[in-house]
Amino acid sequence: MLTRIDHIGIACHDLDATVEFYRATYGFEVFHTEVNEEQGVREAMLKINETSDGGASYLQLLEPIREDSAVGKWLAKNGEGVHHIAFGTADVDGDSEAIREKGVRVLYDEPRTGSMGSRITFLHPKDCHGVLTELVTSAAKPQEH
Amino acid sequence: MLTRIDHIGIACHDLDATVEFYRATYGFEVFHTEVNEEQGVREAMLKINETSDGGASYLQLLEPIREDSAVGKWLAKNGEGVHHIAFGTADVDGDSEAIREKGVRVLYDEPRTGSMGSRITFLHPKDCHGVLTELVTSAAKPQEH
Repeated sequence: MLTRIDHIGIACHDLDATVEFYRATYGFEVFHTEVNEEQGVREAMLKINETSDGGASYLQLLEPIREDSAVGKWLAKNGEGVHHIAFGTADVDGDSEAIREKGVRVLYDEPRTGSMGSRITFLHPKDCHGVLTELVTSAAKPQEH
Repeated sequence: MLTRIDHIGIACHDLDATVEFYRATYGFEVFHTEVNEEQGVREAMLKINETSDGGASYLQLLEPIREDSAVGKWLAKNGEGVHHIAFGTADVDGDSEAIREKGVRVLYDEPRTGSMGSRITFLHPKDCHGVLTELVTSAAKPQEH
């Protein structure tokens, strides 16, 4: 069951400049940064609030580290903006299988590793009224660093 | 101070079909529907979780009621997808003024009426790394209907 908005993924050309925009404009601070080689991105997670399911909602700022990564190609086509939205669940495996059985294309055969040790998968935007949609199960203890 | 992700605004061609997609796929139910003549939209709010500041996070599904509305023009250009993101604050007037003073264009001189009797304003996407950004102060008691 999907129990929270886990994050909004925002593609940007320059991660440091975008982090600074969110800090200077709204006071949002970086909770976590990492490079995800498999996804081809450098990213910063800004924690905005905690949620009633015991999780939290973040902005995820994404800078491609390769032009041929999914985010790199999206950015070249669309420019900066909202790249995807993500819902949190305790069971990404079960939920993604149930959703696949409803005829929505799930992009990975098995969930992969996302931010802060989470397990993630994506649903095809053409099956979701134009919205690239991620499902996330957090690691037991997301690390702030 | 912005204390939550209040909602993600998603533009769609057919509100009823999109509501049904979110119900059938994820089990999300409609919390509230309304027509906002000023914004030129028919909308449904799907409540996803409550937030640590005493508010909640929603998906806001938006169908234009006029082709020349902001959402109608956006949809004609971009197709269905994420139209804007919204942060919740107790003081949309003070926060939008402070943000204006930092050089970010605020689209309204004074906040206008948003979903469920809230007061809202928008920040220019070109000043926000491509993200149309809304600030929201909820009405005292958002009504479910």
